[in-house]
Amino acid sequence: MPEAASVPSPPRAAIGDSEFDRDTVVTRREPGVYDIDLSAGWTIINAVNGGYLLAVLGRALADTLPHPDPFTISAHYLTASQPGPAVVRTETVRTGRTLSTGQASLLQYDDEGNEVERIRVLASYGDLAALPDDVRTTAAPPAMPPMEQCFGPDDSPAPVPGSSAITDRLMLKLDPATLGWALGAPSGKGEMRAWFGLADGRDADPLSLLLAVDALPPTAFEIGLSGWVPTVELTVHVRHRPAPGPLRVSITTRNLAGGFLEEDAEVWDSADRLVAQSRQLARVRLG
Amino acid sequence: MPEAASVPSPPRAAIGDSEFDRDTVVTRREPGVYDIDLSAGWTIINAVNGGYLLAVLGRALADTLPHPDPFTISAHYLTASQPGPAVVRTETVRTGRTLSTGQASLLQYDDEGNEVERIRVLASYGDLAALPDDVRTTAAPPAMPPMEQCFGPDDSPAPVPGSSAITDRLMLKLDPATLGWALGAPSGKGEMRAWFGLADGRDADPLSLLLAVDALPPTAFEIGLSGWVPTVELTVHVRHRPAPGPLRVSITTRNLAGGFLEEDAEVWDSADRLVAQSRQLARVRLG
Repeated sequence: MPEAASVPSPPRAAIGDSEFDRDTVVTRREPGVYDIDLSAGWTIINAVNGGYLLAVLGRALADTLPHPDPFTISAHYLTASQPGPAVVRTETVRTGRTLSTGQASLLQYDDEGNEVERIRVLASYGDLAALPDDVRTTAAPPAMPPMEQCFGPDDSPAPVPGSSAITDRLMLKLDPATLGWALGAPSGKGEMRAWFGLADGRDADPLSLLLAVDALPPTAFEIGLSGWVPTVELTVHVRHRPAPGPLRVSITTRNLAGGFLEEDAEVWDSADRLVAQSRQLARVRLG
Repeated sequence: MPEAASVPSPPRAAIGDSEFDRDTVVTRREPGVYDIDLSAGWTIINAVNGGYLLAVLGRALADTLPHPDPFTISAHYLTASQPGPAVVRTETVRTGRTLSTGQASLLQYDDEGNEVERIRVLASYGDLAALPDDVRTTAAPPAMPPMEQCFGPDDSPAPVPGSSAITDRLMLKLDPATLGWALGAPSGKGEMRAWFGLADGRDADPLSLLLAVDALPPTAFEIGLSGWVPTVELTVHVRHRPAPGPLRVSITTRNLAGGFLEEDAEVWDSADRLVAQSRQLARVRLG
């Protein structure tokens, strides 16, 4: 049989022109009011991913505030979002020389067309490019095998049940040491680590870091719990513009108790910078 | 000389009747509006302590919301508070069966009597007493010497300059391993650990945990930096009602870069429970 002609890879998407950008773009209806059709492409087990939603809110706030980059953003998740029409309402809380603070709400519509609040956010924005270059980080990147020795959803023998369109949007390669759950043998340790990128090749930027901290499988899976682990609250610190290339995301849970757990995420870029840190509080169903 | 008659110790203050309670009480003026005179007793180097302010906001939200305890509370610090008159304005964002979410602002008055916002907060409240007893915490209490081998401000040969009335309100005994800064020999490690309580003996409760996470000297001192380290944002998770007796607070900084640092605090009670976790983003002056 003749060899199949090799198909050239599609060009890597660029920041500003990619799936992530198209699916997080908000249209300003009037000052402080932005419309969006939430994409069905970022769902995990039928729920719209919380990090994708945070990026949508982050984009609206970047338009509202005089500073471009989220430095610290705290989100309280109120009701479950659905793909479809939504509105983001923003408010400037305070503007300063190097930092500004804003508030934002993501709302959708009930059957009568009334607005129902999904998420409320407080965030302080600055300019990452204006920060001094001083780096005294004592944290170290996670010990992880090279990407070629890690595994993504397409390598998995047991697909996660339910619609998980987000896996088609991501380049996700999990550390085998945190993959036991997918093979019926969870480690019992609250850890999840992966190489992370966007499937269309778009490099990371401060807004996509908001997605990255919430885009891995739950640490609860490795602890041996199944089912949904909804986020109650998520705070992300964005500390540096990420370098081009894949990210490493390392998540740890140390305090599973009383039906709640925390997930601490660190995001490291290809230059070994700790570009983002986050902590979320999530609910678990025990037993 | 005759022996001095021993003076009996004053009775330990009770939760609800203590310096902390009196200085955080808010008076409801009307639904969602609370007045308070911010005490000068909780200042550190002339700044009103951020944890004390968070406890004030937390008390107002506990009155507004149908659930009694802060589960996760995120505060963005906008302008510096001063002792004196202030108002807290609260809003119910959503009420649910086990969790409710609220928003609150602390405001003071400028020379013309206009309100100036000091802090804005989002918080989700629940009922700690209603949580199941399941504890699978893998974190361990910090290794610290017993309290008798730790040191408080009165033991220090070099008092911290500036008015620090808060030190009279607290029982603070620092781990000698994190005290080098007070002797001109900072360790270079971003760590601060202390036994913590209230000077009048009041036991801890969920609201005083909001104070505890922000009441130690800055880790920046041990890194060798001096000067003010103002909090930009602080998120606290309260995970369990603390047992009576002293707390252990352990704070770590691992990402000092670009003029900012994070402080991660863990609060352990006398029953070795991890009762609170927090992370704040703070600004540093480098060099």
